[in-house]
Amino acid sequence: MLVRKETFRVREFRLHCGVTLPEVAVGYESYGTLSPARDNAVLICHYFSGTSHAAGRYSPEEALPGYWDAVIGPGKPFDTTHCFVLSVDSLCNLNVKDPRVVTTGPATVNPATGTPYGMTFPPVAIRDFVEVQRLLLDALGIQRVVAVAGPSMGGLQALEWAIAYPERVARMLSVTSVASLGPWTLMMPGHAATEAIRLDPRWNGGDYYGKAEPTEGLVLALKIVSAIARCPAWADATYGRRPADPAAPPDSSPTGRFLIEAELDALARTRAALMDANHYLYLARANAAYEPGSGLFPVEEAFRRIRARCLLLPCRSDLFLPPTETVRLAAALERAGVTVTLAQLASDGGHLAGVLEIEKAADTLRAFLAR
Amino acid sequence: MLVRKETFRVREFRLHCGVTLPEVAVGYESYGTLSPARDNAVLICHYFSGTSHAAGRYSPEEALPGYWDAVIGPGKPFDTTHCFVLSVDSLCNLNVKDPRVVTTGPATVNPATGTPYGMTFPPVAIRDFVEVQRLLLDALGIQRVVAVAGPSMGGLQALEWAIAYPERVARMLSVTSVASLGPWTLMMPGHAATEAIRLDPRWNGGDYYGKAEPTEGLVLALKIVSAIARCPAWADATYGRRPADPAAPPDSSPTGRFLIEAELDALARTRAALMDANHYLYLARANAAYEPGSGLFPVEEAFRRIRARCLLLPCRSDLFLPPTETVRLAAALERAGVTVTLAQLASDGGHLAGVLEIEKAADTLRAFLAR
Repeated sequence: MLVRKETFRVREFRLHCGVTLPEVAVGYESYGTLSPARDNAVLICHYFSGTSHAAGRYSPEEALPGYWDAVIGPGKPFDTTHCFVLSVDSLCNLNVKDPRVVTTGPATVNPATGTPYGMTFPPVAIRDFVEVQRLLLDALGIQRVVAVAGPSMGGLQALEWAIAYPERVARMLSVTSVASLGPWTLMMPGHAATEAIRLDPRWNGGDYYGKAEPTEGLVLALKIVSAIARCPAWADATYGRRPADPAAPPDSSPTGRFLIEAELDALARTRAALMDANHYLYLARANAAYEPGSGLFPVEEAFRRIRARCLLLPCRSDLFLPPTETVRLAAALERAGVTVTLAQLASDGGHLAGVLEIEKAADTLRAFLAR
Repeated sequence: MLVRKETFRVREFRLHCGVTLPEVAVGYESYGTLSPARDNAVLICHYFSGTSHAAGRYSPEEALPGYWDAVIGPGKPFDTTHCFVLSVDSLCNLNVKDPRVVTTGPATVNPATGTPYGMTFPPVAIRDFVEVQRLLLDALGIQRVVAVAGPSMGGLQALEWAIAYPERVARMLSVTSVASLGPWTLMMPGHAATEAIRLDPRWNGGDYYGKAEPTEGLVLALKIVSAIARCPAWADATYGRRPADPAAPPDSSPTGRFLIEAELDALARTRAALMDANHYLYLARANAAYEPGSGLFPVEEAFRRIRARCLLLPCRSDLFLPPTETVRLAAALERAGVTVTLAQLASDGGHLAGVLEIEKAADTLRAFLAR
């Protein structure tokens, strides 16, 4: 499945915080064909460090397809022989240096000054991502979607969609996600990772464009997030306590490292090369602040608005957004009269299983989408 | 129970790494009276951020007693009407600026240069803490202890005691502890917290004595450790998603913080004021590198050396040193022919419950010590 990135632009976009941006631009991808009645659309919302590249490849040579390729495509649960699957880059997307990502955030040049916004960029909210997507659906003439789905931050967006536009969402699928970030998650990774960026002297209050960037702070933030997105069972099964260099084990050499440290470091550096530290701060803030209904309705009223049938799919080993909190969301939705299916992603891979092991839920997704 | 700190000095102390220090000094406290036969001693080993102040108060005015005061004292499980309870500061103790802590580490003046050792201090090992304690017992004429016990890093020391000196330990009590730090714990808090210190430009390769200290890096390290030492259930029950300042909630103000962030920050700053960043790095390394037997024996042989009856007491909500790993240690000890009692600290307080809620295990401790 070959895919390409399109760009969607909105002039005079009013953010949830009340500030109007002169223009926002986001990238999007689609898989499958929109039916003449425009009634076969599925919207996929990406996770915190993800992009709109949900499935397929940009060229046949590409090593890895989009992150949910295991469940999006011909004959797969999100079946592109029938469905038109759409995926949109968030505002303040982390991977702003990825040439295939289009986003608007602190790294964007402010037309009023000719220099990047930096920390003068107004705060963004999960609700804003939903609004950009809604405007794109409007532009494509799509009134109602078959489903809106996503893992982690994608699950927050899916939930907000079902609350904001109840008549436009037939099904809501929230994978490894919750109602809002719990207080432990606000500390870890939340607070700790953003403090790591601020600790880097190169962050410089967010004013680093055209200068040396706060790469080390961003790398530490990504390590914190990556570790919390995994779990002890995963770490035991993959790296154990093996040294990075058997000739310099951590017990005898001051520079000795464990293999898991070396791999965590290498992965974070690779990812940081495509990312922007200020975008991280803005996106983390949007996630931390999110409450169902975005403050426009009390939470219980927000839940009562939902008309979509909902599938909640926590992962049993998730430390980041613990399954106990997803169970609590399911109960709150049921109390509000929402039809909820609570299933489980049976994986020891931690939070990341919602992205990397989504094929384990293929039957569950298929059954839910068929109803 | 009024207590006072004593100092124990050892000349020409040979570390596990092979380097000999001209002198080490550590503080110690004792509670109760050593019997004429010197056969009623209990050794308490402290946790990572702890000190030898395990019980009692230095003056009647002091607000808080030592950390395990709930179980050490007259009529308590470690009953000082019968027992002589002893507790010793570790080398490279974190709280080197606490006037009641005596320790030797990077902040100590190197007699050869007249300036603090800094990162030229040789690496220390859990085994070294055991050796210092063993020399103190020798100096006090104590051949064998009724029990050696401790939470977390204290549990590692207790285990190493039972392996290193099987004939000198009647009972070993390992609370919220494991055989060695698992790979997930090596990442988080291990790697992430030490990287936070190194990220602070004031750390300066460990050369900061007499200059501005890397307080911000140390504060972030302590936040990471503190968060992992708690758990979601604790965070839900204590702070929830309440804002630090109801007038500036995190969803509307760029400076708005959640209460749990503000409290985490305040606690870390209070603790950091007594601590040294290099000591943190050395102590973290000693914990990460520890394997039962300290590399002097293969792990299985190390376990077979143990003659002590062992009590393992994991906490069900512990993310730092997960109970699953304690269960694995219990199984390995049993395979090695060791008599093991595996109980559980029933708390939602996370890893810290091994320190702050030890009274919940009072009956278990009492029963085990009576056998």
